[in-house]
Amino acid sequence: MNAEILCVGTELLHGDIVNTNAQYISKKLAEIAIDVHYQTVVGDNPDRIKKCFGIGFSRADIVICTGGLGPTQDDITKEALAEYFNIEMVYDENSFQHVKEMYSRFRKDFPKNNIRQAYFPEGSIILDNPNGTANACIYNGEDSKGNIKIGILLPGPPKEMGPLVDNEVVPYLKQFSDQVVYGEKLVVVNIGESAAEEMILDIIEKQTNPTIAPYASAGKVIFRITAKAESKEKCIEMIQPVKEELINRFGKSNAYVTETGKVEDKTAELLMEKNITIAVAESCTGGLVASRLIGYPGISKVFREGFITYSNEAKMHTLQVNRETLEKFGAVSEETAKEMAYGAAKIAGTDIGVSTTGVAGPGGGTEEKPVGLVYVCVYYKDKFNVLKIQATGSREIVRERASTSVLDLIRSSIENN
Amino acid sequence: MNAEILCVGTELLHGDIVNTNAQYISKKLAEIAIDVHYQTVVGDNPDRIKKCFGIGFSRADIVICTGGLGPTQDDITKEALAEYFNIEMVYDENSFQHVKEMYSRFRKDFPKNNIRQAYFPEGSIILDNPNGTANACIYNGEDSKGNIKIGILLPGPPKEMGPLVDNEVVPYLKQFSDQVVYGEKLVVVNIGESAAEEMILDIIEKQTNPTIAPYASAGKVIFRITAKAESKEKCIEMIQPVKEELINRFGKSNAYVTETGKVEDKTAELLMEKNITIAVAESCTGGLVASRLIGYPGISKVFREGFITYSNEAKMHTLQVNRETLEKFGAVSEETAKEMAYGAAKIAGTDIGVSTTGVAGPGGGTEEKPVGLVYVCVYYKDKFNVLKIQATGSREIVRERASTSVLDLIRSSIENN
Repeated sequence: MNAEILCVGTELLHGDIVNTNAQYISKKLAEIAIDVHYQTVVGDNPDRIKKCFGIGFSRADIVICTGGLGPTQDDITKEALAEYFNIEMVYDENSFQHVKEMYSRFRKDFPKNNIRQAYFPEGSIILDNPNGTANACIYNGEDSKGNIKIGILLPGPPKEMGPLVDNEVVPYLKQFSDQVVYGEKLVVVNIGESAAEEMILDIIEKQTNPTIAPYASAGKVIFRITAKAESKEKCIEMIQPVKEELINRFGKSNAYVTETGKVEDKTAELLMEKNITIAVAESCTGGLVASRLIGYPGISKVFREGFITYSNEAKMHTLQVNRETLEKFGAVSEETAKEMAYGAAKIAGTDIGVSTTGVAGPGGGTEEKPVGLVYVCVYYKDKFNVLKIQATGSREIVRERASTSVLDLIRSSIENN
Repeated sequence: MNAEILCVGTELLHGDIVNTNAQYISKKLAEIAIDVHYQTVVGDNPDRIKKCFGIGFSRADIVICTGGLGPTQDDITKEALAEYFNIEMVYDENSFQHVKEMYSRFRKDFPKNNIRQAYFPEGSIILDNPNGTANACIYNGEDSKGNIKIGILLPGPPKEMGPLVDNEVVPYLKQFSDQVVYGEKLVVVNIGESAAEEMILDIIEKQTNPTIAPYASAGKVIFRITAKAESKEKCIEMIQPVKEELINRFGKSNAYVTETGKVEDKTAELLMEKNITIAVAESCTGGLVASRLIGYPGISKVFREGFITYSNEAKMHTLQVNRETLEKFGAVSEETAKEMAYGAAKIAGTDIGVSTTGVAGPGGGTEEKPVGLVYVCVYYKDKFNVLKIQATGSREIVRERASTSVLDLIRSSIENN
């Protein structure tokens, strides 16, 4: 069985929001080995929505649709599904009571339009939506050639859609799949995407299960190793030798595995495992390094303190960076980065001190120190590891890139010590 | 003219990444009044990619495709476009030199596969890609019925795609549009989404140009007011009275306008406009508040310093929070939040001191102080404004929500002073 995801919402077509629903559902289907071949986004336009159901069912067994279950005349995904299967819409008393009850929580009068939310294609399995007015539904039917076709209609708001996918849709669809898919992410640093791919091209090409797929991300390359088997345990067993082979190729200091593919998670894990305490001094990244580390649950065990010393004054009085260093080399320099990292470790009394200082842009660049120039430093066991980075892109990208580099530099400083 | 966006990438179908490219391009097209009717995602599968071009051109004038410009055999969007228009692929020497030069930056040998990146559909306008090996292209042709059809092929990595859209694609497509669309975002705080919508339902319903569209976001509601006219100035003029009417309904302290819809941007603007200096002390948000503020260009004028005092020790020695306060009320308390905000302002010598302290989870909650409980405080002109928040959701959501609340509390503390 394979699926298409159809997201209805004009705000997606305007670029007002990013399509997290498609990602969420795709991920959940991948875990139960149901392939997604297409994702489509269409606006709140009845004609186009109907055409999308036609195209969807012509190329997929399952069409999962989000949005369009509201009370207005534009909300027509249920009608479109009924039309496709040539069935009637029928009234569901339970859903009516549900809509009424949800409305009564925040308003007095019940808009009569909302009775539309109690009608469903005849023969549907109706899914209670505890987080919103619109109940969802699954319809299992046949197309004109007698092939099984499943239509699943979900509400658009992610906080309503998510629990319905987890609690209703995935358990329902599992019956159509006797396999699971499980993947791990190999993070490769210090090597560009093309070069990394080249280094393992022969392995990628001979692999069919697990598969190895590269994708680039700011400051790192990720290879997703994905196995399909009857159980997660079997998948892990299949991934193990492939993983080892790849790590051998890239070298242990350039490649490691995490479930999330996040550099900060590997670093946080390592710090916690070895009980190495850390303090962070940030200038241009302004809290991003700390914030990414602190995203890891339980990090409070080793993360002691962060200093966001944006001004020279703050660098001096909080981190005890020497005035002479700032005057002679400037705030954006290897020397200042070192004194910041050292200061952070000494003041917080930690094993590791980390620093970033650079020109995030868009203003503030000079010929000698252009926008995107960042020094990052890790001070650990009386040694300084400094990286000079010349990032290109927006303020956001420069900050992201610099924080990724220093988070990985923490890891390699520990591992290579 | 209307457009379809076609994003090629198996990692999108696996749910490994979210489709930010589609959002980015949709937004840029909306600004020049080119409607996007569909977004499609397809994997690295030559057959399906070709079918998508067929469907795309059958329902749109312009198909903008991202991804599939790499050097491998799976990268076939240029071939698919050439096949659709029934034209040849031709070699472009400039692009070859470009690929070669980009490669030489990080490796010695030039993989012979990469010559594929120098071939383009004959008659294409070739777009130089300063941020990657793959040049992009625009082909302006006709379908079999003689209708103008434009195919635009862009690289997949956002940092390559973005500048090409801004510098090449938008200027090119502007010739097909004599209108602009301009929108402003009204941020509404302290009022829930349904309640806010209800308050202005009559206004929403009677508006056609500008339109008013709501969308919810963590800790706030945003209404996008969008006008279409012959110039941006005219749009601004049309938006003005609608904006005023909405702000009147919600009350000035609950609603304000920003171009981005970001709470931090409004706060940063206000701080810079009034030259109010700020220091931030964060516990559970761990750098997120500082990081969001520092995302605003030029903020260094007023942002002095941030302290990420995760441990009690750090709260005491860095922010001079009293040991007795921590022992009597705990780290997660109104009293500690106040002393943190006060300490930050005093130590950094700023006008405003800001703090957050809470239980971000998933661990660390107790019956008295459950996961999601956060106190945030703003100290300004000898007054403390404290908010107690009980957020629900993941560690990430709790931190996001708390940082949004305190960023808005800074704004209201200044405005209401």
